[in-house]
Amino acid sequence: MASFESSPMPEPSCRSVAIIGLGLLGGSVALSIRRRWPSVGLTACARSPETRALALDRAIVDEVFDRPDAAAKGCDLAVIATPVNRIAALAQELAKQFSELTLTDVGSTKGGLVRELAGTTAAKQFVPAHPIAGSEKSGAEHARADLFDDKPIVITPSGEELPQHITAATEFWRATGGRIVTMPAEQHDATLALTSHLPHLLSSLAARQITREMLALVGTGWLDTTRVAAGDADLWTAIVSENRDAILSAIEQSRSDLDTLQTIVDQGDDTALRTWLDTAKQIRQSAQT
Amino acid sequence: MASFESSPMPEPSCRSVAIIGLGLLGGSVALSIRRRWPSVGLTACARSPETRALALDRAIVDEVFDRPDAAAKGCDLAVIATPVNRIAALAQELAKQFSELTLTDVGSTKGGLVRELAGTTAAKQFVPAHPIAGSEKSGAEHARADLFDDKPIVITPSGEELPQHITAATEFWRATGGRIVTMPAEQHDATLALTSHLPHLLSSLAARQITREMLALVGTGWLDTTRVAAGDADLWTAIVSENRDAILSAIEQSRSDLDTLQTIVDQGDDTALRTWLDTAKQIRQSAQT
Repeated sequence: MASFESSPMPEPSCRSVAIIGLGLLGGSVALSIRRRWPSVGLTACARSPETRALALDRAIVDEVFDRPDAAAKGCDLAVIATPVNRIAALAQELAKQFSELTLTDVGSTKGGLVRELAGTTAAKQFVPAHPIAGSEKSGAEHARADLFDDKPIVITPSGEELPQHITAATEFWRATGGRIVTMPAEQHDATLALTSHLPHLLSSLAARQITREMLALVGTGWLDTTRVAAGDADLWTAIVSENRDAILSAIEQSRSDLDTLQTIVDQGDDTALRTWLDTAKQIRQSAQT
Repeated sequence: MASFESSPMPEPSCRSVAIIGLGLLGGSVALSIRRRWPSVGLTACARSPETRALALDRAIVDEVFDRPDAAAKGCDLAVIATPVNRIAALAQELAKQFSELTLTDVGSTKGGLVRELAGTTAAKQFVPAHPIAGSEKSGAEHARADLFDDKPIVITPSGEELPQHITAATEFWRATGGRIVTMPAEQHDATLALTSHLPHLLSSLAARQITREMLALVGTGWLDTTRVAAGDADLWTAIVSENRDAILSAIEQSRSDLDTLQTIVDQGDDTALRTWLDTAKQIRQSAQT
């Protein structure tokens, strides 16, 4: 993107970075840092030999390992890019061995992680982060250097982090091309329940209402509205499980609004219906700027 | 589309066609018929002088008028492509003057229309139709010859039509490039409530759950799911008003499924949640073929 080429390149705030877990997100973090900070050394830990071979073939990183501590050894910063239920244990393991290492992650829910690490040594080094970027494709083979460009990267400090780790992690994430947004973990989870998790569930709900016979009559409206419902059911089950309380609140809020809609339609109140629809239209159009 | 060029061109089943109302749909009907049946004469009625000038400038039709009966005079078939609340009156007016004229329409709800015309002279000549095609753009200036290609065109006979009008209207709609689907008006309305109207309302519902402050954190899932919520609030108020009973049933059905989801999430039943999500995924993926 032109804005990158013309903006001054800040000096790298670290000499070497380890990526723990080389999927779509981990691979894209490596490629985006390579683009912006070409002098920074990159190592990775990947469990599968195929992924390790791919990472070297495509020069996504300089060195690959099959163990997290081997990848992190000698590094200034490590990004844990594994499924969210493995992040806390990995953070504790790495903090125990490398007391100077800045730790961060890509997990899509944050409250549980922050609670799990509270009071541990790892909490001083670990800066929780969630880059809001992705794709329906998974795996390092789909990694892209521009995946995070202008995408929100939410940092949710627990308050226990040492200041130098906050600074290092923030500069690192800025170097991926993302926009840094800082908020408490609980606010992040409540917001994502409404901006991401509930829309996914409503999309699935819309898909579930029709029979296969009706598919012959669907138009572009149904196809757009239900597009994300084709996503991986295991992944979304895990997300709902990690963020259950906030998602239950979001479901309750939407159920109450559905009751409002039902009353409006039942009463044939066209003025109220137009206002109900127009509020949605205004919000949706505000996102298109 | 290649399949059109290579398939044999059937002989036109009419010599001249009138389009009553030249918006996106009326204009696209004219252009698609021109492509397939170039020898057929095309007239149109449009209320606005600008639209009439545009229709002649772009040769969408051969002649334009400001009155429906002037456009339909001498024609074999007339397509009423006005807003749905004006179709019944126009059908009766044209049937009264032109007893041989085949009448059809593009209205997106059918039950009310069929009930309104029941027992009238017009019901013998009027073949209710709904081409499921559109665009977020409106007006004849966005008309396209390929708008109906391979799109469902639902014909909902009342049972009162004379056979020659059913045949003429069916051949006409096939010549636009669409796929003919025949079903009773009530089944059409109940199906569209689930395949089109409810998804639109759920898309609006998803948009309404977030505040403007949260817009900074939306990703592609929210953007896809809420895309149609940016549609015209007046148009959608009219659709809901026309198809109220079927939409109320669709809302009730989805509310019951939302209750099921809420119970599953509340109980932390990951197996049931995965099945719930997977059903949606299977249905959505079936539509991608």
